[in-house]
Amino acid sequence: MNDRLIRALKGQPVDRPPVWFMRQAGRYLPEYREVRSRVSFLELCRSPELALEVTLQPLDRFRLDAAIVFSDILPVLEAIGREISFEPGMGPRIHEPLRDRAGLATLVRPDVAVALPHVPATLKMFREARPDTPILGFAGSPFTLLCYLVEGQGSKDFKLTKRLLWEDPEAADQVLGLLADVVGDYLQSQIDAGAAAVQMFDTWAGVLSPPDWERWAGRYAARALARVKGAPRLYFTRDSSPFLSRLHQTGADAFGLDWRVDLAPAREILGQDTPIQGNLDPIALFAPPEEIKRRVHAICDAAGPTGHVFNLGHGVIPSTPIAGVEAMIEAVHERV
Amino acid sequence: MNDRLIRALKGQPVDRPPVWFMRQAGRYLPEYREVRSRVSFLELCRSPELALEVTLQPLDRFRLDAAIVFSDILPVLEAIGREISFEPGMGPRIHEPLRDRAGLATLVRPDVAVALPHVPATLKMFREARPDTPILGFAGSPFTLLCYLVEGQGSKDFKLTKRLLWEDPEAADQVLGLLADVVGDYLQSQIDAGAAAVQMFDTWAGVLSPPDWERWAGRYAARALARVKGAPRLYFTRDSSPFLSRLHQTGADAFGLDWRVDLAPAREILGQDTPIQGNLDPIALFAPPEEIKRRVHAICDAAGPTGHVFNLGHGVIPSTPIAGVEAMIEAVHERV
Repeated sequence: MNDRLIRALKGQPVDRPPVWFMRQAGRYLPEYREVRSRVSFLELCRSPELALEVTLQPLDRFRLDAAIVFSDILPVLEAIGREISFEPGMGPRIHEPLRDRAGLATLVRPDVAVALPHVPATLKMFREARPDTPILGFAGSPFTLLCYLVEGQGSKDFKLTKRLLWEDPEAADQVLGLLADVVGDYLQSQIDAGAAAVQMFDTWAGVLSPPDWERWAGRYAARALARVKGAPRLYFTRDSSPFLSRLHQTGADAFGLDWRVDLAPAREILGQDTPIQGNLDPIALFAPPEEIKRRVHAICDAAGPTGHVFNLGHGVIPSTPIAGVEAMIEAVHERV
Repeated sequence: MNDRLIRALKGQPVDRPPVWFMRQAGRYLPEYREVRSRVSFLELCRSPELALEVTLQPLDRFRLDAAIVFSDILPVLEAIGREISFEPGMGPRIHEPLRDRAGLATLVRPDVAVALPHVPATLKMFREARPDTPILGFAGSPFTLLCYLVEGQGSKDFKLTKRLLWEDPEAADQVLGLLADVVGDYLQSQIDAGAAAVQMFDTWAGVLSPPDWERWAGRYAARALARVKGAPRLYFTRDSSPFLSRLHQTGADAFGLDWRVDLAPAREILGQDTPIQGNLDPIALFAPPEEIKRRVHAICDAAGPTGHVFNLGHGVIPSTPIAGVEAMIEAVHERV
């Protein structure tokens, strides 16, 4: 198997940094849009065959060192008793948002193997289909899932979530504890099904002040990750800079850093032995190819030759030109 | 005159930190909404009498140490030749967005005294009305104004702005140079009209990687601020953490920091003699009063007794409860 990803995530020497990127199986690919013209997003998430098909698409097109299983972060909320829907043009909507202590009684503690079967099934099929390529599993963080559960959708200010934290910390702790246990078991089930590494996405952690991040995001990320063994565990938040000196509180093995982070000083703060992942601005893929290559090389130079997984600093956006993606990947291949 | 603000912005001893807050004249106040039920936002910005009325409203209600003149950051775009409109429920819209080099010919270099008369007029009236209270002037930063000019409105990813920077840096430099000169002269005109300090709002700088911030945000903030003399000049961006070690490149005298910044380490990075402003999470004003007070005291403790202006870490949001604002201000007054 291509072992660049795992070697980099363990801080072992590699011939060049491994490269994969967030949302590499997604709407910027015409072949993905073709599948989506036939099935809804939720149907795609619930069909291991179709999820496998779109997981493989970027591997067939680009020289990538890893796949990431196609899924979404919200199935965990379904597993604890919420219905989710996606309306076209809108983000997800969580029916019956949880706003207070009364909502606690409506949550269920699921058997993860029963409630979240699709992603492990996709992973097993991937291992058969591509024995030579490692694949990442993933889940949303407990805090980010709490945000969706409380707001019922995305938010500009996450006012309702923060009010719950501050007005009824005990209730918030109960929900976050449940979410952490389910997220942890879900990530473990993905490793057991063949994931070579797992990534926790803490998309919304950046709305918190550093002490709030410690209390509500870091603490429950750590509780979830403590349940996960047998493969490297990555933690990603799209606002890394405010929390750099605290990231080790999650207990993660490696950290995905957003594009506003200077990698050289970040490595000093995290410790030179801590593997990192990132961090090209996803919008840089719209720049001319020479500019993309210059930026990729600058990032690799700043990160140094070991303990670095090349990635974007956030997910690729739907209108991204394929040529930009190709220039990025080519530049990483030039690092041998 | 109440000199706490100016003393704090000069690093001189004060009996307690001065307090004002971003958007203190705004929609969270019923008396502001009453005025807005009669006139549009643009009418309000263009009438020095009405702008004075709403500028005074928070001073009449709370024990604040400074006013900030009521206005918006977009008049500068009108001055260089763009029409702006506000549709209810939407943000601002800039007619004829500038997308490429061809747009350069449509921009004009204004006489600031002629093109931007309303804010200086309001400031002069304020100085008459409240000789004992200092007032801040403000402007958007060149980069943030460029974002609005290019996108034509707010944006999730500022893709069009970044494409202009990377595909035609010369054209971007020309627009930013013009904006910097106009912003600088506009801030100077506000000091000449009686502003005790001025603040540059670089709202969108946080979409840039640190090297891009240097090249496109910091450089032109510095060019604008170099034209401004005679009063302390503050620089604020709503994402401060990624740029802390570079903020002095703006040449500003003091820095407004968002709520994701730990003040004690930030002061080490900026230098203990650099005055700072901030940084309570605006959503914390929804918390119970004791929790608000605890957070205000923690911020003041971390900032230390000199060179700190108490403020929110971003503007107050419209649905904020007045009681939360009162608890915050009371806590600052407890610092004597």
